[in-house]
Amino acid sequence: MSDLDIRPARREDLPAIVAMLADDPLGAQRESPDDLTPYLTAFDRLSEDPNQLLVVAERAGRVVGTLQLTLVPGLSRKGMTRSIVEAVRIHADERGSGLGTRFMEWAIEESRDRGCGLVQLTSDASRVDAHRFYERMGFERSHLGFKMNL
Amino acid sequence: MSDLDIRPARREDLPAIVAMLADDPLGAQRESPDDLTPYLTAFDRLSEDPNQLLVVAERAGRVVGTLQLTLVPGLSRKGMTRSIVEAVRIHADERGSGLGTRFMEWAIEESRDRGCGLVQLTSDASRVDAHRFYERMGFERSHLGFKMNL
Repeated sequence: MSDLDIRPARREDLPAIVAMLADDPLGAQRESPDDLTPYLTAFDRLSEDPNQLLVVAERAGRVVGTLQLTLVPGLSRKGMTRSIVEAVRIHADERGSGLGTRFMEWAIEESRDRGCGLVQLTSDASRVDAHRFYERMGFERSHLGFKMNL
Repeated sequence: MSDLDIRPARREDLPAIVAMLADDPLGAQRESPDDLTPYLTAFDRLSEDPNQLLVVAERAGRVVGTLQLTLVPGLSRKGMTRSIVEAVRIHADERGSGLGTRFMEWAIEESRDRGCGLVQLTSDASRVDAHRFYERMGFERSHLGFKMNL
């Protein structure tokens, strides 16, 4: 397989990113790949925030993965900054290719480079394969995640 | 009891905030209330970021609680912005006073006012009372939380 490039997302990547968000058992019901307007607005908001890193993985000119890293400064743990990984998606063609591992390694390295002391993420309780994957990567399943729709 | 005021944290609140972070079964091992230097640096970083809201609850001129709300713009769920609640601490004297409920109501309202479609938080698996509290508040325990120290 040709080389993989992990780079900041650009506006023109949005159709490919949204298609990946929608191609998912949970995402299928919540996305609107036929209308990119809300995603363009959100993309501009993300781009203005230096603590948000939205990246894509590109192989042979094609976007095959996406991930969002958020840097969260905080007081606890002696003023530690943590990072939060959200919205990890791998194109169906790339599953099992090691891209997930490469992506998480990138997120961990980038977090370290930016001075974070902790990387954290939550995963829907139904994503059992993802949980095993994160534990293999060295994450500790130490927390419960609570959500409330507004 | 006198009225409670929830307001943005100020630099002079730091000793009271750090004391609450340290007065906690998990926090006791990870904080350094005798040296505020790292907390001051982190406070300045927090204050510069418009997506970070560090607040305190004050009663009769005394800081009795703290909470951090982070706004995270994102592409998923049609470009939805979510909020994350971190570092909730209630002074020992105030436990059972309803401050936790007031605080979470504030976080939910503030998130709604700022256009968030979701509020989320993680809680250490050992904080069983907190889990019951969040479920009573209407949060759904839908996720597992993974962390990795760097």
